[in-house]
Amino acid sequence: MHYDGDTVRAVLEEVRRAGRSALTPPEAQRVCAAYGIPTPPQGLATSAAEAVRLAQDIGFPVVLKIASPDILHKTEARGVLTGLTSAAEVERAYATLLANARAYKPDATLLGVQVQRMLSGGQEVIVGATTDPSFGKVVAFGLGGIFVEVLQDVTFRLAPTTPQEALAMLDELAGAAVLRGVRGTPGVQREALADLIVRVSQLVHDFPAIRELDLNPVFATPEGATAVDARMVVDFSPPPDRYRPSQEEILRAMRRIMQPEAVAVIGASPEEGKIGHAVMQNLINGGYAGQIYPIHPRAEAILGRPCYKSVLDIPGPVDIAIFCIPARLVPQVLPEVGQKQIAGAILIPSGFAEVGEVALQQEVVRIARQYNVRLMGPNIYGFYYTPKNLCATFCTPYTERGSVALSSQSGGVGMAIVGFSRSTKMGVSAIVGLGNKSDIDEDDLLTFFEQDPHTQVIAMHVEDLKDGRAFAEVAQRVSKKKPIVVLKAGRTALGARAARSHTGALAGNDRIYDAVLRQCGVIRALSLNDMLEFARGLQVLPTPKGENVLILTGAGGSGVLLSDACVDHGLQLMTLPPDLDAAFREIIPPFGAAGNPVDITGGEPPTTYRRAITVALNDARVHALILGYWHTIITPPMVFATLLSEVVEEARQRGIHKPIVASLVGDVEVEAACQYLMAHHILAYPYTTEKPVAVLGAKYRWARAAGLL
Amino acid sequence: MHYDGDTVRAVLEEVRRAGRSALTPPEAQRVCAAYGIPTPPQGLATSAAEAVRLAQDIGFPVVLKIASPDILHKTEARGVLTGLTSAAEVERAYATLLANARAYKPDATLLGVQVQRMLSGGQEVIVGATTDPSFGKVVAFGLGGIFVEVLQDVTFRLAPTTPQEALAMLDELAGAAVLRGVRGTPGVQREALADLIVRVSQLVHDFPAIRELDLNPVFATPEGATAVDARMVVDFSPPPDRYRPSQEEILRAMRRIMQPEAVAVIGASPEEGKIGHAVMQNLINGGYAGQIYPIHPRAEAILGRPCYKSVLDIPGPVDIAIFCIPARLVPQVLPEVGQKQIAGAILIPSGFAEVGEVALQQEVVRIARQYNVRLMGPNIYGFYYTPKNLCATFCTPYTERGSVALSSQSGGVGMAIVGFSRSTKMGVSAIVGLGNKSDIDEDDLLTFFEQDPHTQVIAMHVEDLKDGRAFAEVAQRVSKKKPIVVLKAGRTALGARAARSHTGALAGNDRIYDAVLRQCGVIRALSLNDMLEFARGLQVLPTPKGENVLILTGAGGSGVLLSDACVDHGLQLMTLPPDLDAAFREIIPPFGAAGNPVDITGGEPPTTYRRAITVALNDARVHALILGYWHTIITPPMVFATLLSEVVEEARQRGIHKPIVASLVGDVEVEAACQYLMAHHILAYPYTTEKPVAVLGAKYRWARAAGLL
Repeated sequence: MHYDGDTVRAVLEEVRRAGRSALTPPEAQRVCAAYGIPTPPQGLATSAAEAVRLAQDIGFPVVLKIASPDILHKTEARGVLTGLTSAAEVERAYATLLANARAYKPDATLLGVQVQRMLSGGQEVIVGATTDPSFGKVVAFGLGGIFVEVLQDVTFRLAPTTPQEALAMLDELAGAAVLRGVRGTPGVQREALADLIVRVSQLVHDFPAIRELDLNPVFATPEGATAVDARMVVDFSPPPDRYRPSQEEILRAMRRIMQPEAVAVIGASPEEGKIGHAVMQNLINGGYAGQIYPIHPRAEAILGRPCYKSVLDIPGPVDIAIFCIPARLVPQVLPEVGQKQIAGAILIPSGFAEVGEVALQQEVVRIARQYNVRLMGPNIYGFYYTPKNLCATFCTPYTERGSVALSSQSGGVGMAIVGFSRSTKMGVSAIVGLGNKSDIDEDDLLTFFEQDPHTQVIAMHVEDLKDGRAFAEVAQRVSKKKPIVVLKAGRTALGARAARSHTGALAGNDRIYDAVLRQCGVIRALSLNDMLEFARGLQVLPTPKGENVLILTGAGGSGVLLSDACVDHGLQLMTLPPDLDAAFREIIPPFGAAGNPVDITGGEPPTTYRRAITVALNDARVHALILGYWHTIITPPMVFATLLSEVVEEARQRGIHKPIVASLVGDVEVEAACQYLMAHHILAYPYTTEKPVAVLGAKYRWARAAGLL
Repeated sequence: MHYDGDTVRAVLEEVRRAGRSALTPPEAQRVCAAYGIPTPPQGLATSAAEAVRLAQDIGFPVVLKIASPDILHKTEARGVLTGLTSAAEVERAYATLLANARAYKPDATLLGVQVQRMLSGGQEVIVGATTDPSFGKVVAFGLGGIFVEVLQDVTFRLAPTTPQEALAMLDELAGAAVLRGVRGTPGVQREALADLIVRVSQLVHDFPAIRELDLNPVFATPEGATAVDARMVVDFSPPPDRYRPSQEEILRAMRRIMQPEAVAVIGASPEEGKIGHAVMQNLINGGYAGQIYPIHPRAEAILGRPCYKSVLDIPGPVDIAIFCIPARLVPQVLPEVGQKQIAGAILIPSGFAEVGEVALQQEVVRIARQYNVRLMGPNIYGFYYTPKNLCATFCTPYTERGSVALSSQSGGVGMAIVGFSRSTKMGVSAIVGLGNKSDIDEDDLLTFFEQDPHTQVIAMHVEDLKDGRAFAEVAQRVSKKKPIVVLKAGRTALGARAARSHTGALAGNDRIYDAVLRQCGVIRALSLNDMLEFARGLQVLPTPKGENVLILTGAGGSGVLLSDACVDHGLQLMTLPPDLDAAFREIIPPFGAAGNPVDITGGEPPTTYRRAITVALNDARVHALILGYWHTIITPPMVFATLLSEVVEEARQRGIHKPIVASLVGDVEVEAACQYLMAHHILAYPYTTEKPVAVLGAKYRWARAAGLL
């Protein structure tokens, strides 16, 4: 694609010099032309006679629009006249528009009138771009008219975007079918529309000064796509400076922080009930094998560990300093941490931006930057890293090892993570509190977890992304290797209001978050419990090799509910090939329902379950298995659990790894059966037909986004 | 409203005599006119000259449409010409339409051409009616054109409907805003549109022979609503006969069945492991105090109870007979049950319609009707009725008393109900298996539970409603007094397919189910777990007195997630009046966020929670309370649970009953705290911010539908 950047630069320079914040229609037209964005034939007339000449050259019917740097909303100013079919009409229209403009804004500078070929037919769509405070430049696409106004049917991508992503945008709309053609109208030319989107995204990327851009409407037809009206708003102030160390620097610091060899506890306390005591206890009782240095002005030793007055007194190197002192004292101590070349300061204390002490927090960040110390928090519970038995927190210790790393912006959610993990025996690699995120944020964590061999799944509770663009770039890369689950709080306007009052964070537009997270291959959890269950389940499920999902159920009623859930979670029930259908029919009773779900009926002995599951596991055309177990006397819960884990284990021995989830309905014994299955790395849930399917659906969403399916 | 039924009757009689299945356009026009459904000025022309005359009378522009009983799809036959503005055009059009019709269907009877005033402007909408196999006549309303075709934006009501319901339909559409006017177009006249819907609903109600009716399009304008095209399809075959005893009869039988004084067990067995043994055991061990009569051909006594060879040998009266014999033997024994005047036969055995033995099931139903015996099942686990300690089932006994009655069409779901109830200590009044629903179905149960003082909430798992109309009528009445939760399985096309293969039930169109359930004030649960949690929670929550919901949270992060959940579940966070805001600000720390959510922050002692909750409970402007607890050392989980139940108990003593739900996030101790609170009749859930809000939302949905808010 060729882009004429020089022309755009020249136009913007003109606008900047004139001190304007918006482009005139002729300027916007020049910018569009320079970037190959199709517009109708048009020209600027400075007299009625010229308007007539232009109209005759262009061909009737034409539209006339007032051209003024001072009139942005032309319709409001009655500055547009459409459907002009003769020279006489154009002449009259010219006069009318000038009169209307003067009436609307007597002192407006009038450049003349733009004469444009009037297009008709085709589908109205909208292509736009905006500057999101977190994600920067994003390009938007929606169906025009009623669709966007009433249904807000619009989707977004980070700019610049690719032709493939732009094509995907066309399919994401609720009214996507309109673009394919309905009611006998032909579909639009998708490639032309995608190309226009790409060009817009490149334009705003290349020229950050274009703060907002609206092509509304764009007429999309079977032949092409043409922007009928273009509006561009500019802002020449420099973008906010963002601290962004190189990936190597981030990794070097994050490795020392997450896997420290030596830890200093600033404000360690001999007194039970104090945070500085709890942290010491957790470090020691958690089993951390590195050096632990309590820092205390007077004490000799705390919990048997010799004390130092300052980190500067510690003989060897130190990787992290955990702060357990009041907020106001942090700026005094932090320089010593810097001088000691400690990689990270874990700022447990609250009393910073979250209570309005913004200046104090800025001061701490300034000092940290000066000494190249990374900050976690402030206002956090600390963090856990189980591969090192590290409980750098004042909360209860957690040491169950596993491969999920979790983070939370809120302490409450962090405690829910700890409680849920302990209750469900979920193995974790790390739990990290990010709090006010004065420095270390999600993209720093992702950069570390990406290469951490102990972490296979990452789950994050997020209220805002201070640098969404950086997060997106890292997430897009990491999600190809490891599933990332994000619970974005403040989804709704009410939630976002609560988020603002909570952390002072500006919760971004949720539609943009939603589209960008999807674009990055992130699995979005819509609730706390979903985030926790996805985290727990995704590390257990193998990656499916294809889209063929099979339901095997002992309870027909469960089969129906599991089928409903499959649709809800985007899973495809495979059509059974005749030979496989026949194989199941041989196993299930004659009145059982074959097809998919395979209903093996409730009266069957364990052997029937065993045979049916074995057939499903052995058949390479079945890619994932959903089991519906029904508690009966003939096949009691623990008998089912034992046989299932045996069958699956046998299959694993033979190299067969398929995602399997089970829904167990029955009396309370099913709870123990589920626990047994979970302990044997098979996802099983009691009293629910939706949760197992939701977790399997999350795995599929990830696998599709990562290009593995 | 005046309806001219005679005219409609005459038109339909003509159609019937002619053996046709559809009305011609002039006939449809006459029917519309008779029921006051506005149509454009029009007439039937049998010659070109007459067409011109009519057009001149009506006024140009006009539309010409072919009128033929043999051409239903006029557009397909090129049988419509629009926008005719002169006599000459009309003349030509007449000839063209006749030629097109002959080309399309050479042997079609041509009645002539309908000349109609061409309308323009306004919003295209669709009003229709159809005959649902379960619900009978339903009226449909949707936005026309792309909205209905692409988005399937349409809603339904049982016919006949009322002006209020018809007005509510206008607001239910996703594109409802279109009707209120967008992009500068004026809104439509809502009353006129609602009136048209009511008339259509009355028409199909009065004339069941009208199987399908389409007014498409209807032009809705600020002045009125006019049906431009009407299509009516008729079916004169008599509607299927439905067995429907009077409410008194139902109640008399259901009382004897659910609260029997004496129970016979047909096929009682002395042999452990047999169903007929398990049922005897459950009756006895469950503590049932009525008479228990085992029926066995040879045994003297079973589990200490004397046996009888036939129910006819039993000395006293018997209310129910529980069948534990093979399916094929049921028809032989059922007449004796009838002769004994037993009210209900509980048909546990499978082997009927669900395995294809439809004739056997029909035979059983025939016998039952002959003797006026009501049938529960077949193919069921039986039922529980705890106020009588009655476990008439072969499953494990359940005796925890409470005020929720549950039913399921599937045995698997029934077992999930038992297991979940036992695990969560949910008190129930009844659990009923409906299985194949050969006779007793949901509306019989509703009729009983309506007047059962032991039942306050009803929850039903439904795969199909064999007589949806009867269910709707009863549900509409009962839901005004007691919340009804329905889990409708087979929501999706896949689920419905599974439902068919499971019970042979024809899962109805889910959009119709959804609209009718809403119309009836039924709370729809979208998942098994939701149904169970709603059942458990609704009986505990008092009915709110208004829409003002307040969130009080110790964890700001929970506040955000709880706010999101409020939006998801249609709850309104109240705007705090200044004095109430001030009252909270006095209690919470200065940096805590007031407003709603009230963020009392995590570092506060129990007294802060106590004071804030007390303020919220005492203020009559607060109608419901959502609590977000965060586990801290200062206010540990059990301390919070104790203080909360104390504060609530004090308020209850003072006559203050508000719905309260709590989300507890923290380490595993929060689980015990939740159990404690549940035991004290306060809904509390660990590790989730959405479940408490979902349950509160369900209570609100019910209260609104029941007209209590």
